[in-house]
Amino acid sequence: MELYEAVSPLDFRYYGGSEAFMKKLLPYVSEAAYVKYQAKVEAALVRTLAKHGICSHEIADEVEQAAREVTAAEVYEEQGRIRHNIRSLVNVMRRKISSQARPYVHLFATSADVLDTATALRFKDLTRDVILPDLVALENRLIQLARTHAETVQIGRTHGQHAEPITFGFAIALYVSRIGNRIELIDQTSRNLRGQFSGAVGAFNGLSLITEHPEQIEADLLAQLGLKASDTHTSTQCVEPEFISDLAYAITSTYTILANFADDMRHLYRTEIAEVGKKYDPQRVGSSTMPHKVNPEEFENVKSLWKAFVPRMMTVFMDSILEHQRDLTNSASSRFLTELFTAFDYSIYRLIRALEEMDVKTDQMRRNLELSAGDTIAEPIYLLMAYYGFPDAYDHTRKLVAQVHQTGRTLTELLWADETLQRFLDRLTETQREALRDPTKYIGASVHQTHVTCDAWEQRVRRVVEARGESIREEMG
Amino acid sequence: MELYEAVSPLDFRYYGGSEAFMKKLLPYVSEAAYVKYQAKVEAALVRTLAKHGICSHEIADEVEQAAREVTAAEVYEEQGRIRHNIRSLVNVMRRKISSQARPYVHLFATSADVLDTATALRFKDLTRDVILPDLVALENRLIQLARTHAETVQIGRTHGQHAEPITFGFAIALYVSRIGNRIELIDQTSRNLRGQFSGAVGAFNGLSLITEHPEQIEADLLAQLGLKASDTHTSTQCVEPEFISDLAYAITSTYTILANFADDMRHLYRTEIAEVGKKYDPQRVGSSTMPHKVNPEEFENVKSLWKAFVPRMMTVFMDSILEHQRDLTNSASSRFLTELFTAFDYSIYRLIRALEEMDVKTDQMRRNLELSAGDTIAEPIYLLMAYYGFPDAYDHTRKLVAQVHQTGRTLTELLWADETLQRFLDRLTETQREALRDPTKYIGASVHQTHVTCDAWEQRVRRVVEARGESIREEMG
Amino acid sequence: MELYEAVSPLDFRYYGGSEAFMKKLLPYVSEAAYVKYQAKVEAALVRTLAKHGICSHEIADEVEQAAREVTAAEVYEEQGRIRHNIRSLVNVMRRKISSQARPYVHLFATSADVLDTATALRFKDLTRDVILPDLVALENRLIQLARTHAETVQIGRTHGQHAEPITFGFAIALYVSRIGNRIELIDQTSRNLRGQFSGAVGAFNGLSLITEHPEQIEADLLAQLGLKASDTHTSTQCVEPEFISDLAYAITSTYTILANFADDMRHLYRTEIAEVGKKYDPQRVGSSTMPHKVNPEEFENVKSLWKAFVPRMMTVFMDSILEHQRDLTNSASSRFLTELFTAFDYSIYRLIRALEEMDVKTDQMRRNLELSAGDTIAEPIYLLMAYYGFPDAYDHTRKLVAQVHQTGRTLTELLWADETLQRFLDRLTETQREALRDPTKYIGASVHQTHVTCDAWEQRVRRVVEARGESIREEMG
Amino acid sequence: MELYEAVSPLDFRYYGGSEAFMKKLLPYVSEAAYVKYQAKVEAALVRTLAKHGICSHEIADEVEQAAREVTAAEVYEEQGRIRHNIRSLVNVMRRKISSQARPYVHLFATSADVLDTATALRFKDLTRDVILPDLVALENRLIQLARTHAETVQIGRTHGQHAEPITFGFAIALYVSRIGNRIELIDQTSRNLRGQFSGAVGAFNGLSLITEHPEQIEADLLAQLGLKASDTHTSTQCVEPEFISDLAYAITSTYTILANFADDMRHLYRTEIAEVGKKYDPQRVGSSTMPHKVNPEEFENVKSLWKAFVPRMMTVFMDSILEHQRDLTNSASSRFLTELFTAFDYSIYRLIRALEEMDVKTDQMRRNLELSAGDTIAEPIYLLMAYYGFPDAYDHTRKLVAQVHQTGRTLTELLWADETLQRFLDRLTETQREALRDPTKYIGASVHQTHVTCDAWEQRVRRVVEARGESIREEMG
Repeated sequence: MELYEAVSPLDFRYYGGSEAFMKKLLPYVSEAAYVKYQAKVEAALVRTLAKHGICSHEIADEVEQAAREVTAAEVYEEQGRIRHNIRSLVNVMRRKISSQARPYVHLFATSADVLDTATALRFKDLTRDVILPDLVALENRLIQLARTHAETVQIGRTHGQHAEPITFGFAIALYVSRIGNRIELIDQTSRNLRGQFSGAVGAFNGLSLITEHPEQIEADLLAQLGLKASDTHTSTQCVEPEFISDLAYAITSTYTILANFADDMRHLYRTEIAEVGKKYDPQRVGSSTMPHKVNPEEFENVKSLWKAFVPRMMTVFMDSILEHQRDLTNSASSRFLTELFTAFDYSIYRLIRALEEMDVKTDQMRRNLELSAGDTIAEPIYLLMAYYGFPDAYDHTRKLVAQVHQTGRTLTELLWADETLQRFLDRLTETQREALRDPTKYIGASVHQTHVTCDAWEQRVRRVVEARGESIREEMG
Repeated sequence: MELYEAVSPLDFRYYGGSEAFMKKLLPYVSEAAYVKYQAKVEAALVRTLAKHGICSHEIADEVEQAAREVTAAEVYEEQGRIRHNIRSLVNVMRRKISSQARPYVHLFATSADVLDTATALRFKDLTRDVILPDLVALENRLIQLARTHAETVQIGRTHGQHAEPITFGFAIALYVSRIGNRIELIDQTSRNLRGQFSGAVGAFNGLSLITEHPEQIEADLLAQLGLKASDTHTSTQCVEPEFISDLAYAITSTYTILANFADDMRHLYRTEIAEVGKKYDPQRVGSSTMPHKVNPEEFENVKSLWKAFVPRMMTVFMDSILEHQRDLTNSASSRFLTELFTAFDYSIYRLIRALEEMDVKTDQMRRNLELSAGDTIAEPIYLLMAYYGFPDAYDHTRKLVAQVHQTGRTLTELLWADETLQRFLDRLTETQREALRDPTKYIGASVHQTHVTCDAWEQRVRRVVEARGESIREEMG
Repeated sequence: MELYEAVSPLDFRYYGGSEAFMKKLLPYVSEAAYVKYQAKVEAALVRTLAKHGICSHEIADEVEQAAREVTAAEVYEEQGRIRHNIRSLVNVMRRKISSQARPYVHLFATSADVLDTATALRFKDLTRDVILPDLVALENRLIQLARTHAETVQIGRTHGQHAEPITFGFAIALYVSRIGNRIELIDQTSRNLRGQFSGAVGAFNGLSLITEHPEQIEADLLAQLGLKASDTHTSTQCVEPEFISDLAYAITSTYTILANFADDMRHLYRTEIAEVGKKYDPQRVGSSTMPHKVNPEEFENVKSLWKAFVPRMMTVFMDSILEHQRDLTNSASSRFLTELFTAFDYSIYRLIRALEEMDVKTDQMRRNLELSAGDTIAEPIYLLMAYYGFPDAYDHTRKLVAQVHQTGRTLTELLWADETLQRFLDRLTETQREALRDPTKYIGASVHQTHVTCDAWEQRVRRVVEARGESIREEMG
Repeated sequence: MELYEAVSPLDFRYYGGSEAFMKKLLPYVSEAAYVKYQAKVEAALVRTLAKHGICSHEIADEVEQAAREVTAAEVYEEQGRIRHNIRSLVNVMRRKISSQARPYVHLFATSADVLDTATALRFKDLTRDVILPDLVALENRLIQLARTHAETVQIGRTHGQHAEPITFGFAIALYVSRIGNRIELIDQTSRNLRGQFSGAVGAFNGLSLITEHPEQIEADLLAQLGLKASDTHTSTQCVEPEFISDLAYAITSTYTILANFADDMRHLYRTEIAEVGKKYDPQRVGSSTMPHKVNPEEFENVKSLWKAFVPRMMTVFMDSILEHQRDLTNSASSRFLTELFTAFDYSIYRLIRALEEMDVKTDQMRRNLELSAGDTIAEPIYLLMAYYGFPDAYDHTRKLVAQVHQTGRTLTELLWADETLQRFLDRLTETQREALRDPTKYIGASVHQTHVTCDAWEQRVRRVVEARGESIREEMG
């Protein structure tokens, strides 16, 4: 198939459209990769049989060699003939080995043992090698952005209306926190993926013919691959679906945070708000008919792909229901899960690019803040009056605000002219007076919170990365 | 990209995995096809300008020629440079024509004019040329199946329990009716797709510079392509989203019927029920470890793909919300709609194959019916007793059923031995007695309904096909 | 249950929280109403039997009287005992009538005949009596708003960026068009709801015991209620699910348009944009802590409820799949469909209220337009230069835009100083020059389109209303 | 509102329809309960201010007393006037206290501080007091069922086809494992819910006016309620949405397991399979027209409610996206989350009831197993032949199976008559021969696995319960 003969936008445009990106993900998400992982599981199976004395290690060597040689094309060709995917893989592998070795390929396994274990393995690897590093890279850029703008005053917005001032760094720090939290969840759920080697209905029917401890053989096979079985070695024909579902949820939930961030930036990008923008690049075309346009298309792309992929959780839930030991109505649909991971990682990649191009306009933030500077002090007035014991501070402040609308005078003027409030105003500290005079001072703990949050997550994320590193070393050792 | 480097199962396995299938859909669903359709719209645009005297017909000829030559690869290469899809197409086309012709390419159009119009056009063609013919083929096979088994008695099931007898043909006829109804809806919603040529914000800003009737130019351009604008030529930057949404709904709703049919067959396939099966084919492998298995995998595949694609309607709804004249958060996500059409058509293709292999086991239907023959007459007893005026017919029958459980006697025995009922039983006609004796006679209007339904839809579906034929001729004329 | 003991926000807050609103919907959406509709179907059933000579008209009178007297409380009390909803209704009705009449209540019907027919009937009535009138009222207010502001110039926005000018009326007219189109779809799909009287498995098993034309009895029963059966009288135990699904889709699709409108208004409400607002009302509280806030909470509520209800389509699709003649896994879930209708109508009600309070700030629209007045003329420059045959008009204009950024001069200045363009500029008409000088003149066909669209939909919507009126009269006649 | 005036099936039928059930959940899920929780948070707030010396403890006592007296009706009445929910609560509370106390009610809080904290608190309590105990009760019943039938042989099914034998206890044990795993996740995610006291935009703007450590005041307030803030005290106006989303996911994922279990039972209930059933109860009505029907309606109800509630996760994801410090498009929609918890707990309640009525038909399990006894040995034949080194064991066994179809002889006969296999057959152990003779012996590790799984989860679940108990004590201490 030529690239533009493809029907999936992932293939021809997003994953397939960026060579570097595709190269990075291909060893995990392509069908070729999946076949490779299946062959790897088949090889581990025979090695396990050898360790348990069922066949020789030479046979296991043969099978390992065959596994390395298998290609997706061969397997699919065989499948065109016999219409069964794993039996095709087995046939292809068997052709590459001696007749003595043949009986041991796939012995005691059902297709799902190989498929589900390979799936767990490739998603675990993909998460560790690609998704987490990319997400950590994004997190680190956000940390940097938050720190840089820890003191850049910006108006906080609720209901799309100016509320009270914060700093831009503080706004970004919230994403540092939310994404940091998800990095830990993705890490944990991906490590928690499970494999199996329990046969056609999950009861070790075959293995029990030759051993009293079939679960030990399962455990050994999976340990070779860096995996575990379910806690008590239960399964139907399939691994319990919750392990994959948990990871899919972790990804979808994180994706939602990225979409939220993209939305925030899109709105800050609006012509009237213009608190962030893009450095002007004369090469780029913003519109096919409006030469002046410079658009937040990276952020739009992230939000858009989120809309395409968030409903996939419905499929995950539906696929977690299988009749009895298994019907196969999850077989085709669960294949599409790989797309979720790919789109998610692609969105991280786009966001990183977007952050590189992003221009934070601190002057405009200041200008916008001033738009409502007169109003935002309504809150500190009310709070301080109440704090100093004025019984109806809230309603009184609302009356002052009403007077602003009626008289055209500013809230500050009205405040200091208000005789009822004098004895409370007299008690204000200098800092409190400052907050009433200058809204850029009424930013609460924005600066402190920004740094505390960045510090904490920088450490926690580093810990995830380091633990990952160790686990890689362990598995290699 | 090699086939097995793809990440989408549609590409490497379903669409891309079947050469004949892919060949049929490629001219509509591939990215190459989309670019072709866009170029076709650009050509029609210049032709329209020529008709309105804005440029010469020679220029329009040049552009048409260029449009025929454009390839997706060229356009994507340009896009790698300038990062704007339609401007890339325009640049590529402009390179193929004289400098006099260049100003007129894309003149007065915004990208969305070309993209949305091309989308409407290719979905309309795809529906007419592929999806409807395939769906009609499935419908005709179901009609044939229903007629063949119009008199094949089968137990009707509610709650998974034996209820009252029907015929297998009658059960199939329901699908004839449901699918028939959807064929008309798909036909109607696909004909109702709209295009546009209204500029960057939908208000014909550009065209209004040179004419007082810009909507006439829009109408002319679209008419050339066999399309219409929205009823009063309104749009934002985009065509109103409901036209596409209606078609997506029609497809999804039909897909749901296919999934329902697949589920019914899957359950009739169960070992204990076994009313349908598959002719034994010694070549086929049913399980990698259980050589005796013969599975309903075609039906499972249909249900499974439905689970992957039914949530796509969520994306369609989310994509119908765009801020103001348009944000572009529908840009990436709406590209995936093509996948829905492809998967749907693939499922039709699998169902047709499944029906070819399907073996209807009339003997087993009869055997199953007899399992509960003694019980199913409870309903006609109750109904006839009530009909002849017995006041508590329902409760009385329930008592008889209770006695079956208590005494071990059959319901028939208890019925005829029941003295309270005698004067009502005496009034039964011969046909009514027959229905109480032989459950295969208590099939209501199953046979008649089967034929009536098949007759009606055979005609209505033929009418859809013929009207399509005419519309093809009209457009060619 | 006390109001605040309820768990559903619809009950205690939205539907139950507004007496007038609740009163209007209660006769259709409450459980009490549903029981009433079921009883009405049971009464029509016996009347039909009487018309066919199966029982006397006096008996039908008795049953009709009983149906009028039935209350939900009675039925639920009986259900507490026997755990079957329709049998409970039947028992309650039977207690209210003579022993001669009793056998005919529910005779030949299965529960689903009554439930599905009652559902079709109440949704048809609800749509005709409440939803369509409310939606038409909203449409008429939008028409009025669009006409009022047909000439109010506003900047059109794409990507959240200023694009080209339109008028506010034109922006509203798009919603007039989209909602108008949906009014017709809701009208059509609600009229198309179907009932049934075909027995336990849909094959008229019972009725066929006493007549050769059971479908005629079905047709007569339904005609009494103003309904029809499926086109060829097919059904399983249930009416074919597509009729209800089509209406649910029509509602959901319209809801999405309301959500889109709400989003647009929310963003125009933003402090920095402020093109719409709310008249200041000193009584209202915008924030519990920020006395100055005035928020678009009506619009937020509409968008928010849409998020709660749009996923309900997933349930509708899943409920359209039932095994064989029916499993009952749609029984509990389909009860929730009423909530969708209620929430939808509530959102219309909120939008109407929001429009009453809305303040369109034409001055601010003008101010915002001027923000980018210098840039928006890039499009007409490019278009006119190309129109007059300048080969590289697009790229040349982009260069001018680049110079704006470099030189700080305006695009207008650069344009008229550009020697290469002189011979093309010379050809401009006065109107064209005007569009380059004054962006408020570059609004295309906004004004005309606004009126054309309002005219068309005013008529079409009136036609729907009038046809409804006639159908009411017909049914009464 | 009268019960049957309600529009939500939860209210009038499921939650409101069962007095005992409603009574148990009402203190958490009703609107009355929510208001109580909000008042509790307001009281804790003033107590915290008192602890920090901002007001006296007598004032905090007054406010606590007022909080205890507040009713939902009062608050809603006030809200009818001022249209703001939390300010209404504050007004109502202020009326119940002295004028000295009034300034301190709600001081420094924004509405969301109270609402989000109250939500976290009531969901935490609801989970601990109701949902987890109910789910543990279900788990314990399943453990009991699994143990009882640890040795009850049943055919395992894949593709709806007989695969290899297991035991019924083993099939149930899988649900013990899956649900056990979710009990831990629900426990963990509910404990992880967070509150906040960080003001209008999350930056502690107000509190920072009077203290340098506002996060300490937040921590103290939350600690009083048994809650924590986000790890670094970040928030926007709202608590980070992931904490609630994680719990919603945990519930939805568990719900899916219940639906899976319900489906399994529904299918085992089928007339032809009949491996489980319901004890005959002459009082119950199974069908309004078929007096003999006994249906799996409890299981259908569970599956059906799952279909109504699983799409709610879409709303949760959409609600996790808020613009800037908050738009309020999550305000109405997030109120519906309570319904998910209620429906879920109701489904547990129905399942427990279903298990009480369930009749496991061991004889029928044996009979069904024998249906395919001749076929299921194909797997052990193939495995053992391969194990003993026969190179083409799989294909050879398939040929034997083909001969069964051709010759009508049994697989066993063909096996022992097969000369090629003799030397491998000779090596079989007695146990292996037994498995080939008697399929009820080929159940693998079913029995062992059942007990191991029940043992493990019994302990782990007990640990959850006990830890809960301690946490209750801690919070009281």
